[in-house]
Amino acid sequence: MIIVMERWATEGQIADVVARLGEGGARVQRLDGERVTLAITGSLNGVASPGESMGPDAVSGMAGVASVLRDMGATPQVAVADAREGEVHAGDGGEPFSEAPGAGAVAPAPEAEPGFQVGDRWIGGRELFVVAGPCSVEDPETMDRIAREVAAAGAGGLRAGAFKPRSSPHSFQGMGEEGLAVARSAADAHGLLLVSEVLDATQIPLAARYVDVLQVGSRNMYNTSLLRELGRARRPVLLKRGLSATMDEWLSAAEYVVSAGNPRVILCERGIRTFETATRNTLDLNALPVIRERSRLPVLVDPSHGTGRRSYVRAMARAAVACGADGLLLEVHVDPDRALSDGAQTIDPAGLRQVLREAEAIRGALLGVEE
Amino acid sequence: MIIVMERWATEGQIADVVARLGEGGARVQRLDGERVTLAITGSLNGVASPGESMGPDAVSGMAGVASVLRDMGATPQVAVADAREGEVHAGDGGEPFSEAPGAGAVAPAPEAEPGFQVGDRWIGGRELFVVAGPCSVEDPETMDRIAREVAAAGAGGLRAGAFKPRSSPHSFQGMGEEGLAVARSAADAHGLLLVSEVLDATQIPLAARYVDVLQVGSRNMYNTSLLRELGRARRPVLLKRGLSATMDEWLSAAEYVVSAGNPRVILCERGIRTFETATRNTLDLNALPVIRERSRLPVLVDPSHGTGRRSYVRAMARAAVACGADGLLLEVHVDPDRALSDGAQTIDPAGLRQVLREAEAIRGALLGVEE
Amino acid sequence: MIIVMERWATEGQIADVVARLGEGGARVQRLDGERVTLAITGSLNGVASPGESMGPDAVSGMAGVASVLRDMGATPQVAVADAREGEVHAGDGGEPFSEAPGAGAVAPAPEAEPGFQVGDRWIGGRELFVVAGPCSVEDPETMDRIAREVAAAGAGGLRAGAFKPRSSPHSFQGMGEEGLAVARSAADAHGLLLVSEVLDATQIPLAARYVDVLQVGSRNMYNTSLLRELGRARRPVLLKRGLSATMDEWLSAAEYVVSAGNPRVILCERGIRTFETATRNTLDLNALPVIRERSRLPVLVDPSHGTGRRSYVRAMARAAVACGADGLLLEVHVDPDRALSDGAQTIDPAGLRQVLREAEAIRGALLGVEE
Amino acid sequence: MIIVMERWATEGQIADVVARLGEGGARVQRLDGERVTLAITGSLNGVASPGESMGPDAVSGMAGVASVLRDMGATPQVAVADAREGEVHAGDGGEPFSEAPGAGAVAPAPEAEPGFQVGDRWIGGRELFVVAGPCSVEDPETMDRIAREVAAAGAGGLRAGAFKPRSSPHSFQGMGEEGLAVARSAADAHGLLLVSEVLDATQIPLAARYVDVLQVGSRNMYNTSLLRELGRARRPVLLKRGLSATMDEWLSAAEYVVSAGNPRVILCERGIRTFETATRNTLDLNALPVIRERSRLPVLVDPSHGTGRRSYVRAMARAAVACGADGLLLEVHVDPDRALSDGAQTIDPAGLRQVLREAEAIRGALLGVEE
Repeated sequence: MIIVMERWATEGQIADVVARLGEGGARVQRLDGERVTLAITGSLNGVASPGESMGPDAVSGMAGVASVLRDMGATPQVAVADAREGEVHAGDGGEPFSEAPGAGAVAPAPEAEPGFQVGDRWIGGRELFVVAGPCSVEDPETMDRIAREVAAAGAGGLRAGAFKPRSSPHSFQGMGEEGLAVARSAADAHGLLLVSEVLDATQIPLAARYVDVLQVGSRNMYNTSLLRELGRARRPVLLKRGLSATMDEWLSAAEYVVSAGNPRVILCERGIRTFETATRNTLDLNALPVIRERSRLPVLVDPSHGTGRRSYVRAMARAAVACGADGLLLEVHVDPDRALSDGAQTIDPAGLRQVLREAEAIRGALLGVEE
Repeated sequence: MIIVMERWATEGQIADVVARLGEGGARVQRLDGERVTLAITGSLNGVASPGESMGPDAVSGMAGVASVLRDMGATPQVAVADAREGEVHAGDGGEPFSEAPGAGAVAPAPEAEPGFQVGDRWIGGRELFVVAGPCSVEDPETMDRIAREVAAAGAGGLRAGAFKPRSSPHSFQGMGEEGLAVARSAADAHGLLLVSEVLDATQIPLAARYVDVLQVGSRNMYNTSLLRELGRARRPVLLKRGLSATMDEWLSAAEYVVSAGNPRVILCERGIRTFETATRNTLDLNALPVIRERSRLPVLVDPSHGTGRRSYVRAMARAAVACGADGLLLEVHVDPDRALSDGAQTIDPAGLRQVLREAEAIRGALLGVEE
Repeated sequence: MIIVMERWATEGQIADVVARLGEGGARVQRLDGERVTLAITGSLNGVASPGESMGPDAVSGMAGVASVLRDMGATPQVAVADAREGEVHAGDGGEPFSEAPGAGAVAPAPEAEPGFQVGDRWIGGRELFVVAGPCSVEDPETMDRIAREVAAAGAGGLRAGAFKPRSSPHSFQGMGEEGLAVARSAADAHGLLLVSEVLDATQIPLAARYVDVLQVGSRNMYNTSLLRELGRARRPVLLKRGLSATMDEWLSAAEYVVSAGNPRVILCERGIRTFETATRNTLDLNALPVIRERSRLPVLVDPSHGTGRRSYVRAMARAAVACGADGLLLEVHVDPDRALSDGAQTIDPAGLRQVLREAEAIRGALLGVEE
Repeated sequence: MIIVMERWATEGQIADVVARLGEGGARVQRLDGERVTLAITGSLNGVASPGESMGPDAVSGMAGVASVLRDMGATPQVAVADAREGEVHAGDGGEPFSEAPGAGAVAPAPEAEPGFQVGDRWIGGRELFVVAGPCSVEDPETMDRIAREVAAAGAGGLRAGAFKPRSSPHSFQGMGEEGLAVARSAADAHGLLLVSEVLDATQIPLAARYVDVLQVGSRNMYNTSLLRELGRARRPVLLKRGLSATMDEWLSAAEYVVSAGNPRVILCERGIRTFETATRNTLDLNALPVIRERSRLPVLVDPSHGTGRRSYVRAMARAAVACGADGLLLEVHVDPDRALSDGAQTIDPAGLRQVLREAEAIRGALLGVEE
């Protein structure tokens, strides 16, 4: 169990928490940094210590406690990552891949809100962060039409692939740098952040010149060479879950990025591989409450890949927001049946507007109940 | 593709739909019953016919059309089952298992509302149907305390197992008839319907004396002998999805019950078996939009078994309602840590009230958006 | 860890084993019965005791030791079941379902050979036990032609389904009792044991009049009502693994039968459900070494259902025998493309002869190496 | 369906095959290269043509026919790859990564034998190719002791990892170049080929200085950047199946390497991820007959990773050879319990000798039956 104290927690408050933990017989390890973190020895290496038996509830309501994490297992930095301070550390030294197109200075955040800033957006806080766009970059005119619709619907990011990971070497592999430039123009024209995928470490410097958030696709989640290099990048990373990755492995992949110096990791659930064939993948929304217990990183959900069928996107987007997603990743095209790839799971602008309307309604209803 | 016409559809409206389908080159088969059903030939045996290419949207908005089903595959009766009329047919002849404890006459329903009546509840319509209670029947005092809390929270049904399907013959196998009597008393005392599981066909007459809804557990979903016999029962059936059943197989199991004469089947998603171990099962909410396309049967969701962890129930219950569940099945106990079985996934009465409050808020928000 | 001593083990040999175990610090529990069984305390409830660390090798070669089982977990009777003595217990009392068509008295077995006798065959010993035949019972002439080929190829059993578990209620459900009679005649005419499936407990008395080995199909493996009743039958049971059953659950299903009084259970691996679609199921041969560690029950392999494709049966039959299967279950038809069901995975008589020739060659080669 | 003719096939033989195919109504496409390849139009894009109905048997025995492939789907080059000629093409031009430590000139092979040469070994032919060694490179003395045992047992290759793909960034990541040098020395001292893994494209030139066969691990199977670069390497590639990769995806990964110019790909089945937990992975031997139908590439099996348990390796190695594996990949250590990683699945030299003895016995028995 890990207890993260607020930055403003007093020594008296810290001592109270340590004392409470001591009642259960736990040995408490104190880690001083920008925030004080208290770790119950034993949980660090996966073995429960006596103090575990009291459970998070025993201290989660005490003064000065920011959050309590049940088990940080093999991903201690992911468990306590606080991206608001992280940017500073990442920038120390050589400033690799530094020309951030849309990412301005990180503004001080309201203390109570988790998450971090990218450009003029806050990800992982009260507002949903919706990223929408075509599977692959299209011609400039089509990209502009799509970006206009995406912005009009209220989304904050544009997605479009320039490097495509394909099962077959004989399939279309994407437009490369030309595609990145086209997508950047479309994003800029409509005030959107740009999210796009990199397939290996050599593409990072190039992609970082155009892209606000670097995406790691499902097939690369175990690519530790790529993950480590992204830990040196000054760009947030959107890390998709591997198609048969356990949640532990997914968090370990995030740990590669965070422990290499980049705390701005956004997780994205996109469906796992199961025996079921009615859906292309099995969107595993259970990941939302599980990840919440183990990490403070923002989590998006991609119901387009998660289901593989246009007609299921709306229902699953609603469910994602209801169980706590910080946002959505959606395949959207002005003419889905003419998309260069993945048309079967792509919705149109009217569909996007409906999804966002319902998502906001659910978000609002839940905030109303909680207050 | 199957087009089910409203009962009040005129011959002119039917002719209009047939003509519209004809434009796409489809051959249309007309089935006259209490409702007229139009089937596009070809989809009946799994091969798309020319008319398929136009898609459901082409006719779903036409006057007199009640619903359009994309593909009825191997489960034609499940696809078009309309339980409101079904009860009449089920009652023809010998009235097997007839002493319904709580199930009164089936009242005429508002035409626009799907689903069917059980006792004084309407299942599958505008109201959520929530069934809550302990995994196994407990002593009378505890059952009464639980039923009181369940009713006070606003749930409509009490669940409690008297016959338990256990992996090991050395585990507790349930209280049998004594348990049914205890649960019946608790349900009656607090105005709740009683839902309980039967393990084989020989238990049906006994269980039907005490129980309002007969449950088929996950491990028995393929038990066709049991399913066929339940088709002769005058009780609704709650049919849980098998732990590695495809949605097609699940609907086929329902088809066994419906085609044997009992149209009142309630489906219940309860998690499938995957490689993931962070959750006991992987609750597969994708089933909601998929089943909606293929069947008119009500669908409940069981986040207790679906996740196996108390702390994940609340989030997944919200998600279930958001993507269209007609209700929830929840393990609830006044003292979860002392439950006879499955305590790890059982919530307490305060948790139940919170789940229901949030479920209603989401339901309300979505109705607001749709109108 | 469980050490089963030979029936003829002397007190001195038992004392030696206890002493050897004691060197590792283990506390040893002695259970006296027809055989002496030594259990290392701790493994009984799943927690390793100090003695566990020495491993089975430390005692498996000592004089008087019959077998060493690593962990008997939740299936103690399956772990130590010895069907040679078992028949006696099963016969105590009412002799349910007693008119065994082919099953004579159980002859005394050579002490060193595991397994048990059915009719004039020994199952689970040195000889492979091969059961072959059509998926469903066919007309009498076809059944006779198939049985003739099966016997000529050297197989010992005929398989043919009279009660078929089908996904859809609209599919062919089998010929019922008429089919059993046809299959019995064919088996008798060619000196074969008859293996056929029962779907529920009510079918057992009828099936027991015709069938030598009662089969529990994959979809019924969790059907505890059926399993318990089979524990009262005086027929061996062929228990197929459920399509997504863990090996622990499979052994627990066997435990239902054995602990209810019937020790003659034959396990049958027939493929599990995974994401792979190149094969109908994923034949899981890993089950062979795993089950060998946990149980003394014979294990057959069904490569027909396990792969679902005729052209893969031969290779997987060879593999099954190589990793220790006690026999094979094969779908065979004189004209596979005209079989009433499952033709795609059915081989012809020439294929059967080739499979048996190769199986015997592998069995012989391995006996040669071991000696 | 693809028919590959022998290099020495006459025009008359080719015409006979075309005529035979024509009887079934098929349109036949002829591709002239070093060998003539006949493709039945239609199967090229996955749609069966009339000629398909006759099946491979119709022509496989005709004079001049080298092999018949049922369906080459999306991997045409993998389907017809013939590595014996391939080396020549790969060497054209820039000779990337050329200092092959052990790989001499490719000797002319007996026409009837499939596979290809690496150093002084022939892989994929009549002899089994066994690669054994520790998971990670150890100190020089231990590596030498292990290599001596591996060679003495009769294996042809040494495996040892210098770059380790680990789930957690906090785990041991391997010894890097120093490890490669240690392993090379041990292999040279005992006349073994060296097989070792690369994690990304940047490691290829370095690894190619030390290693005879470059391994792609399970987690990198979808890493198309790495696969493409390996297509330019003058080293054979051992391509492990991804942990949840379908066989189609696995062959597509091979297609990336082969179509980029390197035909010497060795496939390696190492277990897939399923729900079963009794084994670490589910070794999927069904891959052997499936791959045989679709490709001529050699296939090894890794029962160490496939089961994750030392005590299951022997049985599964036997099964692998029985169903057609061209060799084995085995984790072996002189002191398995002190191995730096994966000790639980590592066997000792005595175990290796036993595995090889049994493997040869099975191989011999099957050759005896076939002749």
